[in-house]
Amino acid sequence: MFTSDTFDLDPRLEADSFHMTTMDGCQIRLMNDARFPWLILVPEVANVSELFDLPHEKSTKVMALAIKLGAEMRQKFGADKINIATIGNVVKQLHIHVVARFETDEAWPGPIWGVGKPIPMTDDEKHKRIHSLHMSLGHMTASPDVL
Amino acid sequence: MFTSDTFDLDPRLEADSFHMTTMDGCQIRLMNDARFPWLILVPEVANVSELFDLPHEKSTKVMALAIKLGAEMRQKFGADKINIATIGNVVKQLHIHVVARFETDEAWPGPIWGVGKPIPMTDDEKHKRIHSLHMSLGHMTASPDVL
Repeated sequence: MFTSDTFDLDPRLEADSFHMTTMDGCQIRLMNDARFPWLILVPEVANVSELFDLPHEKSTKVMALAIKLGAEMRQKFGADKINIATIGNVVKQLHIHVVARFETDEAWPGPIWGVGKPIPMTDDEKHKRIHSLHMSLGHMTASPDVL
Repeated sequence: MFTSDTFDLDPRLEADSFHMTTMDGCQIRLMNDARFPWLILVPEVANVSELFDLPHEKSTKVMALAIKLGAEMRQKFGADKINIATIGNVVKQLHIHVVARFETDEAWPGPIWGVGKPIPMTDDEKHKRIHSLHMSLGHMTASPDVL
């Protein structure tokens, strides 16, 4: 499943999401799905599919970042619930989902993975989401790449 | 949704799982579903539904425990993948799922939540699972309650 000793982003993750920024060796990417405000975090470490494959310090940092972004997303998007998960049954490269959920969204109250088809964001939707997260990310790092 | 300042386990979580042990103020419970080796971790903190509602130190500890148990479950059960998630759209009380997944399980490669109906374990299945995790938990604490 892995073919390199250097980190290469899985092409399916790349196709499905936009790179916002990289913090502490972890890519923060916005999934291209208008249905849900949805980030994935991808540690830039080769050959890793589970959180426990990372060094302890690294997994702690990645999860702390996911939790912090979850708190920001709840506030910025007025979400009813935040779902944080590492599933990876299809795309094995480790990625952590942080999803803002609403009682009115199409998958509620079930999980979002494998439900329906992604609806690509319009440029306007994309920029609104990125703008909503910009200040949060701005606290932590330089401007997101996609602005 | 919450009615008390003291921690009370949500009755749905209680009905669906067995208490194995409590570590560092976090219940480790085995879900009563023969289809998947499946733990939930429930921090004994009142009025908490999100990881970011916990003090930072506490959320770090809970996630470190989930990751450690995930590693043990992969090994003990020979799992193809470990899924770690906090969803909580239905039962709001914070609980973290740690699930051993197999390419042959009935929900693969989708997530397990909301898929099909739980199949209660036989006593034999229950004891086998608990026994498989016993040594792992034994490294960390006293014997699980349900042995």
